[in-house]
Amino acid sequence: MPTISLKGRNMPESPIRKLAPFADIAKQKGHKVYHLNIGQPDIKTPEVAIEAVKNIDLTIIEYSPSAGYESYRTKLARFYQRQNVNVNSEDIIITTGGSEALLFALATITDPGDEIIIPEPFYANYHAFASSTSATVIPVISSIDDGFALPSIEDVEKLITSKTKAILICNPGNPTGYLYTEAEIKQLASLIKKHDLYLIADEVYREFLYDKDDVHYSVMNLEDVQQNVIMVDSVSKRYSMCGARIGCLVTKNKNVLATVMKFAQARLSPPTIEQIACEAAIDTPQIYFDEVISEYKSRRDTLITELNKIEGVIVTKPKGAFYCIAQLPIDDADKFAQWLLESYDLNGETVMVAPAAGFYSTPGMGLNQVRIAYVLNKQDLISAVNVLKEALLVYNKK
Amino acid sequence: MPTISLKGRNMPESPIRKLAPFADIAKQKGHKVYHLNIGQPDIKTPEVAIEAVKNIDLTIIEYSPSAGYESYRTKLARFYQRQNVNVNSEDIIITTGGSEALLFALATITDPGDEIIIPEPFYANYHAFASSTSATVIPVISSIDDGFALPSIEDVEKLITSKTKAILICNPGNPTGYLYTEAEIKQLASLIKKHDLYLIADEVYREFLYDKDDVHYSVMNLEDVQQNVIMVDSVSKRYSMCGARIGCLVTKNKNVLATVMKFAQARLSPPTIEQIACEAAIDTPQIYFDEVISEYKSRRDTLITELNKIEGVIVTKPKGAFYCIAQLPIDDADKFAQWLLESYDLNGETVMVAPAAGFYSTPGMGLNQVRIAYVLNKQDLISAVNVLKEALLVYNKK
Ligand SMILES: Cc1ncc(COP(=O)(O)O)c(C=O)c1O
Ligand SMILES: Cc1ncc(COP(=O)(O)O)c(C=O)c1O
Repeated sequence: MPTISLKGRNMPESPIRKLAPFADIAKQKGHKVYHLNIGQPDIKTPEVAIEAVKNIDLTIIEYSPSAGYESYRTKLARFYQRQNVNVNSEDIIITTGGSEALLFALATITDPGDEIIIPEPFYANYHAFASSTSATVIPVISSIDDGFALPSIEDVEKLITSKTKAILICNPGNPTGYLYTEAEIKQLASLIKKHDLYLIADEVYREFLYDKDDVHYSVMNLEDVQQNVIMVDSVSKRYSMCGARIGCLVTKNKNVLATVMKFAQARLSPPTIEQIACEAAIDTPQIYFDEVISEYKSRRDTLITELNKIEGVIVTKPKGAFYCIAQLPIDDADKFAQWLLESYDLNGETVMVAPAAGFYSTPGMGLNQVRIAYVLNKQDLISAVNVLKEALLVYNKK
Repeated sequence: MPTISLKGRNMPESPIRKLAPFADIAKQKGHKVYHLNIGQPDIKTPEVAIEAVKNIDLTIIEYSPSAGYESYRTKLARFYQRQNVNVNSEDIIITTGGSEALLFALATITDPGDEIIIPEPFYANYHAFASSTSATVIPVISSIDDGFALPSIEDVEKLITSKTKAILICNPGNPTGYLYTEAEIKQLASLIKKHDLYLIADEVYREFLYDKDDVHYSVMNLEDVQQNVIMVDSVSKRYSMCGARIGCLVTKNKNVLATVMKFAQARLSPPTIEQIACEAAIDTPQIYFDEVISEYKSRRDTLITELNKIEGVIVTKPKGAFYCIAQLPIDDADKFAQWLLESYDLNGETVMVAPAAGFYSTPGMGLNQVRIAYVLNKQDLISAVNVLKEALLVYNKK
């Protein structure tokens, strides 16, 4: 048999997918499974976007330009400007999801063996994107004790070697829900300036902030270091259009843009119809977002209140995105998550959680933690946490 | 300034894009430019597909499964079976264009420095996909003298080293229009079996055959070597749905599928709405294809007849796809192509061609060749070739 690449073999399988067969078993038994494990919102896509699809006026579904439609890029730049984010249309390349933007960013700045520093726990697929381009992830551990704030800048700096090309952050964070402060972002800016690195910021949850005084500080507003900064964004969460596969890579660095364009031209173009839908989505009325944010805020509050009622659970209130990391009074979240699906139910109901170890790259970290996504309605969240609570009692008496 | 990766810097720019600014200049002068350089068909997308988009019944544009919708994969498998191509739904992973399938295939089987043998001239983006995964392209030269048939199998075998992982073919070929015979495919099959390599076949033009007795021989029908075979396909050309960005990777090799799935899961999913359109497109009535093929056949015949009227032009009749390579009585097709746009017009009209050197990776090959795509209607093709003919007279008198 011909062989599989090392990078392919070494790529970790999605921590959540491994549990999927057990969820199927639970469902076959007739159990209801509350999915606290997924990032697919149940929020409706804005009507303007769906209407744009329905009213599509094309006889040929043609390739779009490789950088995306000019009209979309122009409207998108204005969208950022209205948020006081310093972006012009020529700084934007439309990508097939934020995922592709991350892949292009890493391919543009790393050769095999080059290193990317990422605060962990982090979005598990960063690992996969680094693998596909043969870069190495160097984790810097952030701690549940201070709500996953940026580790001390000295700890980050210690990890910089001659192979380091970038620091990659997710702001606000999946899986932590942590929102970096302006001061933290500026600390990172000094560091990348000093060592001439890139700072890649995954800002796909930029609108999902829940506390009145919090503001999102985009790396695009770091005036001093614009040549070192790459922003990644996506419509997936903003408009609940995950299936559109439209994102973007944004930078003022012309060399980076030119190289990203080579990768973009090779794959020809991002999806045409979905781009038209995204262009329309920019006109989504503010009330849509107000409602979405207030819904998530109350889900978050409900979730955290309920989790805090469980003895032995440690969790800090996330400030953004729609995830949190909870530490449970157990040894091995992997086993517990499987047991929940395979062997437990409370009146025919159980929950699926994502073991957090999959979001760490340091072995042994996060073993007693799970990621919980609050993309269910409040009543379901309350029921789900109640199942979790009762399950922990049973599990710990076993 | 932080640095750009070597692979990013070394990636060739698209040979066609380099000419784009000159085409803009010609258009600014008010000249009409016949685009013989592009692969975007002017053929209408089937109505069933457009209607499926217009009738979309979604309130949330959600992620699809990473392998694509089960219903689509099932219908697609039946589509192949009707063509006597040996494919089941579990052999298929839906990708974001054939482009992504090629990228996944290469990432799955190569590590940095591994080699892929490709008959040249070849689709220029193969280079880019190999670059992004740090594999090396090893070309084997096919010749215009025998219409770009497979080079002798001994010539191919000579290039195999311990680093060779696969042979990649495009059938029928872009840019050559060559259709491999069953005998040629079987020769390749013996070779990959002997050396335990993969055979990747890019079959995105599989339906575009113009001669009565020609049949397409898919690698999926090579019974002996199914563990070594990967097929890449796409809806881009079949349904003139290039902008849908839907393709697929097909193989019976479970290890390959499992590894491709890791890459597929990392990028989450292919586009949702466009997949729904593609599923509907499978019901396109046969008459659509009959009309499309007969249109392309007559375009091909027209183009070749007209080209053969020009003194010094060498071209063989392509059997498939919608491109041909023509050798022109000039030294440097790059310069000539630029001159056509920058300095020439015949009554306000000029043509844009793709210099063929960009489709070779051996330096110095194809310098006097161009790729011509016949995606224009017949009258435009006649006019375009006439412009080319008159231009050559002027150019060679300069
Ligand atoms: C942190 C983060 N980055 C990027 C992505 C990629 O999203 P997409 O490719 O759908 O834009 C996700 C999706 O869940 C995410 O959570
Ligand atoms: C030979 C060949 N392979 C693959 C592709 C990729 O097509 P897509 O990504 O649109 O499916 C093309 C597009 O022109 C092509 O010509």
